[in-house]
Amino acid sequence: MADVIANMSMSLDGFVADPEDRVDRLFEWYGNGDVEVSTAAGAVFTTSEPSAKMLRAVMENLGALITGRRLFDLTDGWGGMHPMAVPVFVVTHEEPAHWPHPDAPFTFVTDGIASAVEQAKKVAGDKHVAVASTTIAQQCLNLGLLDGVQVDLVPVLLGSGVRLFDHLDAVTELTEPEVTEGTRVTHLFYRVKRA
Amino acid sequence: MADVIANMSMSLDGFVADPEDRVDRLFEWYGNGDVEVSTAAGAVFTTSEPSAKMLRAVMENLGALITGRRLFDLTDGWGGMHPMAVPVFVVTHEEPAHWPHPDAPFTFVTDGIASAVEQAKKVAGDKHVAVASTTIAQQCLNLGLLDGVQVDLVPVLLGSGVRLFDHLDAVTELTEPEVTEGTRVTHLFYRVKRA
Repeated sequence: MADVIANMSMSLDGFVADPEDRVDRLFEWYGNGDVEVSTAAGAVFTTSEPSAKMLRAVMENLGALITGRRLFDLTDGWGGMHPMAVPVFVVTHEEPAHWPHPDAPFTFVTDGIASAVEQAKKVAGDKHVAVASTTIAQQCLNLGLLDGVQVDLVPVLLGSGVRLFDHLDAVTELTEPEVTEGTRVTHLFYRVKRA
Repeated sequence: MADVIANMSMSLDGFVADPEDRVDRLFEWYGNGDVEVSTAAGAVFTTSEPSAKMLRAVMENLGALITGRRLFDLTDGWGGMHPMAVPVFVVTHEEPAHWPHPDAPFTFVTDGIASAVEQAKKVAGDKHVAVASTTIAQQCLNLGLLDGVQVDLVPVLLGSGVRLFDHLDAVTELTEPEVTEGTRVTHLFYRVKRA
């Protein structure tokens, strides 16, 4: 069964974006090396070798993606093709009025997070479901639906912005992390311990 | 000249204590191994070998400690003997009315953080000054007086409590971290990059 993994770049003080929703500083590691990593949709990252190895493993195991309406709107729905080229489930209160890519692998889920997780897991099969939204990751944690956390920890203190871990209802124990040292980023993968 | 280093155990979501000021969960790694590390004051930790090595290096290089009045009061002034057995500078608005250890190496600094840092650096000589208070670490960062951050990152999400990094005025770039993988803790040492 597919694992649900929150996956984000985070500053040491816990932010995934600055107060203006900018992520440039936190995403620098995707372009600060000389090893090319191509996504299935044709995007190319140039990272350090350790980051490239980690990214390839993540992409090989990615089966679906859950995102929120905010990120979907901010990116204009990735023009109908997410860089990771996997089915995308958009959690939203209502479907967009004009979605110009009806054939793209996007599903608008209007009946809540648990439904989105269920649908995404079904599509992902044995692969992972990635969660690319702080609020959805938080709700998955609170609902006991999150299996792991991939934090790409960037050596900067932003001071303010959008927090990855916020509004959590309870203490959550994690496993020992898998640590990968990239250039200007420390990749940490934890699994959520079930009580 | 002495470096000023903030040194704390922190949950992955950025807390150094829970809402009731409890630190037990975050300090577990000081006692979850079988390698003994004795402090100069006779306290004994039992940690994993990597943590023990890191702790010994930190203690050998420790020349003075700056703390706030809150931690000083919470610990009853460590009974006049801090576990690290180095001179302690307590930043406070006024000296305690009854301090039963007048000969202990404690200095009450009533004229501000910058003064405490200056006095502690003088005493520390070539060794480090550790900052063991979130508010003082934050003020040191904002004043440009912090040289490094030692974060002992614990694999738990506390959800609420006392944040290590809060009330920061600006973006602070850090160096690549030195990473030490202990048992149920990942030690990360960053230096502050000067603009």
